[in-house]
Amino acid sequence: MVSLECDYNNGACDQILQRLLETNRERLPGYGTDKYSLAAKEKIRSACGCKDAEVEFLAGGTQTNAVVISSLLRDHEGAVSATTGHINQHEAGSVEYTGHKILELPGIHGKLSADVLRDYLLQFHSDPNREHMVWPGLVYVSHPTEYGTLYTKSELSSISAVCKGYGIPLYLDGARLGYGLMSRDTDLALQDIASLCDVFYIGGTKVGALCGEAVVFSGIRKPMHFTNAVKKRGALLAKGRLVGLQFDTLFTDDLYFRLGEHGIRMAERMKNILRDRKIPFFLETPTNQQFILLEDGQLATLSEQVSFSYWEKADEEHTVIRLATSWATTEDELEALRKALVF
Amino acid sequence: MVSLECDYNNGACDQILQRLLETNRERLPGYGTDKYSLAAKEKIRSACGCKDAEVEFLAGGTQTNAVVISSLLRDHEGAVSATTGHINQHEAGSVEYTGHKILELPGIHGKLSADVLRDYLLQFHSDPNREHMVWPGLVYVSHPTEYGTLYTKSELSSISAVCKGYGIPLYLDGARLGYGLMSRDTDLALQDIASLCDVFYIGGTKVGALCGEAVVFSGIRKPMHFTNAVKKRGALLAKGRLVGLQFDTLFTDDLYFRLGEHGIRMAERMKNILRDRKIPFFLETPTNQQFILLEDGQLATLSEQVSFSYWEKADEEHTVIRLATSWATTEDELEALRKALVF
Amino acid sequence: MVSLECDYNNGACDQILQRLLETNRERLPGYGTDKYSLAAKEKIRSACGCKDAEVEFLAGGTQTNAVVISSLLRDHEGAVSATTGHINQHEAGSVEYTGHKILELPGIHGKLSADVLRDYLLQFHSDPNREHMVWPGLVYVSHPTEYGTLYTKSELSSISAVCKGYGIPLYLDGARLGYGLMSRDTDLALQDIASLCDVFYIGGTKVGALCGEAVVFSGIRKPMHFTNAVKKRGALLAKGRLVGLQFDTLFTDDLYFRLGEHGIRMAERMKNILRDRKIPFFLETPTNQQFILLEDGQLATLSEQVSFSYWEKADEEHTVIRLATSWATTEDELEALRKALVF
Amino acid sequence: MVSLECDYNNGACDQILQRLLETNRERLPGYGTDKYSLAAKEKIRSACGCKDAEVEFLAGGTQTNAVVISSLLRDHEGAVSATTGHINQHEAGSVEYTGHKILELPGIHGKLSADVLRDYLLQFHSDPNREHMVWPGLVYVSHPTEYGTLYTKSELSSISAVCKGYGIPLYLDGARLGYGLMSRDTDLALQDIASLCDVFYIGGTKVGALCGEAVVFSGIRKPMHFTNAVKKRGALLAKGRLVGLQFDTLFTDDLYFRLGEHGIRMAERMKNILRDRKIPFFLETPTNQQFILLEDGQLATLSEQVSFSYWEKADEEHTVIRLATSWATTEDELEALRKALVF
Repeated sequence: MVSLECDYNNGACDQILQRLLETNRERLPGYGTDKYSLAAKEKIRSACGCKDAEVEFLAGGTQTNAVVISSLLRDHEGAVSATTGHINQHEAGSVEYTGHKILELPGIHGKLSADVLRDYLLQFHSDPNREHMVWPGLVYVSHPTEYGTLYTKSELSSISAVCKGYGIPLYLDGARLGYGLMSRDTDLALQDIASLCDVFYIGGTKVGALCGEAVVFSGIRKPMHFTNAVKKRGALLAKGRLVGLQFDTLFTDDLYFRLGEHGIRMAERMKNILRDRKIPFFLETPTNQQFILLEDGQLATLSEQVSFSYWEKADEEHTVIRLATSWATTEDELEALRKALVF
Repeated sequence: MVSLECDYNNGACDQILQRLLETNRERLPGYGTDKYSLAAKEKIRSACGCKDAEVEFLAGGTQTNAVVISSLLRDHEGAVSATTGHINQHEAGSVEYTGHKILELPGIHGKLSADVLRDYLLQFHSDPNREHMVWPGLVYVSHPTEYGTLYTKSELSSISAVCKGYGIPLYLDGARLGYGLMSRDTDLALQDIASLCDVFYIGGTKVGALCGEAVVFSGIRKPMHFTNAVKKRGALLAKGRLVGLQFDTLFTDDLYFRLGEHGIRMAERMKNILRDRKIPFFLETPTNQQFILLEDGQLATLSEQVSFSYWEKADEEHTVIRLATSWATTEDELEALRKALVF
Repeated sequence: MVSLECDYNNGACDQILQRLLETNRERLPGYGTDKYSLAAKEKIRSACGCKDAEVEFLAGGTQTNAVVISSLLRDHEGAVSATTGHINQHEAGSVEYTGHKILELPGIHGKLSADVLRDYLLQFHSDPNREHMVWPGLVYVSHPTEYGTLYTKSELSSISAVCKGYGIPLYLDGARLGYGLMSRDTDLALQDIASLCDVFYIGGTKVGALCGEAVVFSGIRKPMHFTNAVKKRGALLAKGRLVGLQFDTLFTDDLYFRLGEHGIRMAERMKNILRDRKIPFFLETPTNQQFILLEDGQLATLSEQVSFSYWEKADEEHTVIRLATSWATTEDELEALRKALVF
Repeated sequence: MVSLECDYNNGACDQILQRLLETNRERLPGYGTDKYSLAAKEKIRSACGCKDAEVEFLAGGTQTNAVVISSLLRDHEGAVSATTGHINQHEAGSVEYTGHKILELPGIHGKLSADVLRDYLLQFHSDPNREHMVWPGLVYVSHPTEYGTLYTKSELSSISAVCKGYGIPLYLDGARLGYGLMSRDTDLALQDIASLCDVFYIGGTKVGALCGEAVVFSGIRKPMHFTNAVKKRGALLAKGRLVGLQFDTLFTDDLYFRLGEHGIRMAERMKNILRDRKIPFFLETPTNQQFILLEDGQLATLSEQVSFSYWEKADEEHTVIRLATSWATTEDELEALRKALVF
């Protein structure tokens, strides 16, 4: 069985396991105050070109979104998101669980547009009833999006400018950031993201780590008593070294970027295979997730040899599925996919 | 100045004030256990044709929505609503404050359609990722809607059938129910609503009372420990008699319906005046709220003599405003409106 | 049956009903922006000797406590209260429902002591683990307390000084403030309270109103977007005039104080009756609540003629009950009590 | 420097790292559905002697407490805990963050007594005002407690019987369960705990794992849609294998118990050293945490060579500190402690 259903069906990259072994017997203080966590923060600041950024580590993506969003929003505020945003669709209502509304705006292929955002904010702030409404207090974007698409530097700059104009922080969910940064069709570097966003997270779970995400407050200060907020939300790891060491490793010798690059190289190869096999794309993307359209008979056949993700029904007889590569995908796996794509 | 900006710019109907005076010196137990509250519940059950219904009183509409929805939803559930639903737009995120998501569906002129609802539920329940999503656990409709429109018996029956098919309670927000019931274009009686909905509220604040809404659990049992839930949400009035007595009065001698009928009669007269004056309707409705389109110059002129509600900008030069009648609107007020509508 | 079980078993004072009648037909804007609400705020500021205070109206005590406390606390903070505090015992967990802990300290007869508070704060702020703990972010006291007791000016000054020393707002729950202010054994005037506390509420429900409490921010600014916070918590009355007009009346011609004085005069008379009848006090208080100790046989006898509140079991054969007077208690009622107290 | 400040200053036991290496390249499904998680659940059920138990894995202790407690409590309920309970003191209000109160009862050396619990429940259920109060809906105990103490089988049986009598689930926090089970002064085996408690967790973080706790529902069913509840609270790990594999390892060949036994052996040796050095115990315990009393001069001296945890000030000149052993403590470390304990 070839596993292409997601980018977290693997363990960690070898370098991470090696360093876990090497440092295992050290006595280190807890809760992220260990030297590896501190070193990792410094390396991330450096990679972001943002020497004053504050960096914090959390265990997973949904947790990170809920902790960051709920600790930044004020009582009367909610988070603006594209309807398709992960926080709005696939996080089980974890933002609302913290007492805050998600303010949905229509997106295109997962992306929010600066124009739609600007119109909404203009309308909101001219509404005489706004004191009875949830105020937009943060803008959430994902990059890559849930559909594998990417913002251009121009697009993200426009969104950033709108946010700055209204004094609203821009937050970027980088669960798969490594693949976005190494896409062959992007002009957005990590330093651009750090500069355009107020806060964002660099995803580890899907890019080489066992678990862990690095939150970077590059444009605003982290909330006061952030450790307390993390603890209160059940998200503080006693052995913070576990995530700190992983990010220290990922940001040594550009490992994070090399892992992302591998995932992209595998994705490009997979796209070629799909094209060779004349499989119609529902959405062909510049990152590690590809969405294809299969007849339901093909779907059944494929499912005997390949694990994939169901995405949505296209019509009575067709289904959209997602195939994802990752830092761990092998050429053998893609060859097996090629062989399985004979209907 | 003529006040037509809303239906809560008045006091209470005379009968209510009279009975407050008459009963003022009585010593009565608190928290809604007084005899007037009990009598009111019985009268409401009778009017609903639902002798087993449980009735509870709360102070206001947003409070009622939040208490009812949050005490009915289970942990993994959210409330389905049209995008324009009052809970989704103008209640400051009070449902989300209780930790539950509102699941938006597109509506038409404020109304949810059974087809849209059915498609959504079908898709949700066939989604393999649904354990990571918020489950639809209640369907919210308002009647009249925020746009003054009404469901037909056939439409509400279809929605009710979809809900029953999925075992999801149907909840109707009747903030302006009196006007809906007495509309000249409705085939939905109170008993129909009690029969088709699982729970709904009969609005008092906008139909003759100083404050107060009556929640009717007609199709399901009220949640266990409901008094505790009300107290926990800060919504338990010590002098429950205040709301109980008002509803006892409103449901004596059909007063609630007569007040609604007055509001509708005034609305019909107002519509005639608007038509006479050739004022274009943005939305002409069968209830007590009318939405008209004015040039911004007209708007400025009108605002010197008439209080109205800003609704939305129509385009660069036009604005939509709302004019509302109520149980308290007088013919003199409408004549003054007529005079003011000369541009 | 004589009703002495509580101080909210009555309607409103005559003056309030009279003014409701007089103003009933006026068209007034909603949500507390009407002229009566504005006038009431001004009168309260004046009575408090605090011309810059911000005043807001809410419907009931539990609601007021939850709204004020949750909108003042920051994410990492909780509210300090005596164990016996109403918020900690009899509000169904409404503060915790907003996501904040109540930090219990032992009290004496309902009162918190400055020494206990100071020791706790000193210990907390020297605890190296405090980032894993809930920070004291507000101090809650009630006056009169749940046991009818009162702080002296010296005691409240000491608590206030401790709070100021730590930069923590002091909040006073004045559900029965009228009785406290008019007690014959108090040296705390309303202006003292306004000066010593940062925020407090003047209880209307138990002192002459149908419903309503007036929150006074005398030492700190009210939170930004407070109307939104009130709305979000389901506590915004559409017809804000209902509470505003009541407080406008209560603070005209010292009515609030005269009502309190009546309740105290009746309480003093009741204490005399209890002493005459040789009924042992569990707690004799300077306000309108008295706690007496009855043999269970006496209890049964009394309950045939008098309504009282069960307080707690004293031992196998004795029970503590509460008798409360109010602004509405009559001499006839007390005479009936005297007659019933024959065992 | 000798690190005895806590039991989570280490990495993982060798066997866990070895298995992470061995399985690293396997493609496994996410969210705890992998074969190692399933195998671990089976082994835990077997070790608990409870073949129908449901087992779930979470990342850390505070998270586990908040997820379990908030998903078991109903709207009107809170969790009963000793005042010293970890959830009540050192989890930053994470239970209250979910909207539920902690109902404090006095404990002795961290332990709740069945008598105190029974009296409280009896009093609560006879209180006529209980609908205005938070209902006890779960009893929380920790074993070992925060003070290193242990319940006897008789004590836990009594608490269990009280809980059963009131139909309230008993939940045991086993953050350090391995040390409790292997104490030389315990008669409580894992199977006893599974039998007496309704739900409990077996702590991994402090007993050999990098992270992770295993929740065992032995006496009640796990809540419906538990995965959704976990996701909603930000606690669902994408790579569930990380915790599953660790517990699979810990429950192979009694490793968990052997690790616990080592921690206890080291603790006994440390106690001997402390006694040899005539260091007064503040609390000598049967588990891996020991509390000693030092003069502040001694404290300063010791802190140059030994890391310990500040516990509390004993008086002006003395301080209580905690020294903890763990599965990773070495004899060399204890010898270094011995050498450092010369004042």
